[in-house]
Amino acid sequence: MSIRAIFDTHPKPIGGDRDALIRCIDECATCAADCTACADADLAEPDVQEMVRCIRLCVDCADLCVTTGRVAARQTERDDAVLRATVEACRLACRACAEECERHAHHHEHCRICAGTCRSCEQACEALLATLS
Amino acid sequence: MSIRAIFDTHPKPIGGDRDALIRCIDECATCAADCTACADADLAEPDVQEMVRCIRLCVDCADLCVTTGRVAARQTERDDAVLRATVEACRLACRACAEECERHAHHHEHCRICAGTCRSCEQACEALLATLS
Amino acid sequence: MSIRAIFDTHPKPIGGDRDALIRCIDECATCAADCTACADADLAEPDVQEMVRCIRLCVDCADLCVTTGRVAARQTERDDAVLRATVEACRLACRACAEECERHAHHHEHCRICAGTCRSCEQACEALLATLS
Amino acid sequence: MSIRAIFDTHPKPIGGDRDALIRCIDECATCAADCTACADADLAEPDVQEMVRCIRLCVDCADLCVTTGRVAARQTERDDAVLRATVEACRLACRACAEECERHAHHHEHCRICAGTCRSCEQACEALLATLS
Repeated sequence: MSIRAIFDTHPKPIGGDRDALIRCIDECATCAADCTACADADLAEPDVQEMVRCIRLCVDCADLCVTTGRVAARQTERDDAVLRATVEACRLACRACAEECERHAHHHEHCRICAGTCRSCEQACEALLATLS
Repeated sequence: MSIRAIFDTHPKPIGGDRDALIRCIDECATCAADCTACADADLAEPDVQEMVRCIRLCVDCADLCVTTGRVAARQTERDDAVLRATVEACRLACRACAEECERHAHHHEHCRICAGTCRSCEQACEALLATLS
Repeated sequence: MSIRAIFDTHPKPIGGDRDALIRCIDECATCAADCTACADADLAEPDVQEMVRCIRLCVDCADLCVTTGRVAARQTERDDAVLRATVEACRLACRACAEECERHAHHHEHCRICAGTCRSCEQACEALLATLS
Repeated sequence: MSIRAIFDTHPKPIGGDRDALIRCIDECATCAADCTACADADLAEPDVQEMVRCIRLCVDCADLCVTTGRVAARQTERDDAVLRATVEACRLACRACAEECERHAHHHEHCRICAGTCRSCEQACEALLATLS
């Protein structure tokens, strides 16, 4: 992961728990891509009518993951209140999306995969929040 | 505002306070553009060294405004916990950005304008949060 | 429009045709919101199965409008090759989305409104491209 | 990479060269994160005055990478004209950002790393474009 290498060469010391930050940035990037692809696969399913809630939560989750990954990647003049609230919104979006994808996991393999990615990202958000007191 | 016209023709009833939602979506769009332009103007200032915190908070605010405007514009299968946390993160980003821009308002006119936009968006977020119990 | 006021106070002269730039930034903001709301309304339609292409083109168009509005709002150290290619991609996305929304305009009023917004944004992109030689 | 697993379970056949698509989506995610972190590191440098062009091209590149990764990840009702123009804009943004980061690579290690990521993403865009006739 090159983001770690960039953090290592940042001119100012990175505040807080660097591993938790990097894990969150990394999980957000993966989750944004998987949620975008899962919403797209849902759209192509013959039972798209049943997948509406899944599509909606996947696109919300993708948007929050992109923004959270960006806010977390910025370490200069960091505002911890903004970071915390952003990661918290992302955590909730990942959880909501995981719960819905899990409901479809037995009949749509892409939902099973996406649910796993969302749970990973939810945990990475939780772990980062625990380091931001 | 065509977003109001689209809401008026949405096949499902829009939950909650439609005016508060539309105001928030609209303010987020304006604030995202102003913060992007203000960060860019900061970069071109001879005292860019002094504007680093302003640039950083403007780009965070722009990102949160884009995502919040999108989450708020989606009314199908809305998840109020996700919406609330997203609007709350946006409110904090707008406030932090407004406070920093206000510090530079007397010598950079673009900061004065951007601070006003951020305060408007902060209030629109507050007003929307008050309708989401 | 406060983006015009920010441009007027930018420390460096804004290159090219300021009116074409501002119009494009403004249309992109409106089009991003309308396409997000139209895709969401499509998802709630009883004939969602028939709206899959419309949803897909609306979300592409929303993404391109957000990015194009940002790239166009940045005037410091502008790279015209990047700006031109970005506006061109946005123009094509607006056109594709307008064509599809027009197909549904007679039975879904939100598609009729969204098609109009996409055509406006397509024209604003064309007008900006004509000023970037 | 879970995006490959999701593509493998997509209900409709993925058009074109799947490896080129997945590589582009993956490089875009990495490049978006690295460019965001490099722009942030630039902001914290004592010579930020000299890094203005680098910051600007990094944020443009991050925005185009996010949007391109999303458009490429959507395979349902794909519009190849939109995909091609989007990937082309991303290729140009990666190239411009790489060229500028390379100018600073000898004195800012984060620019050296970011330049490498941008070149990889530029090549992934070129490779994808070669498969879209």
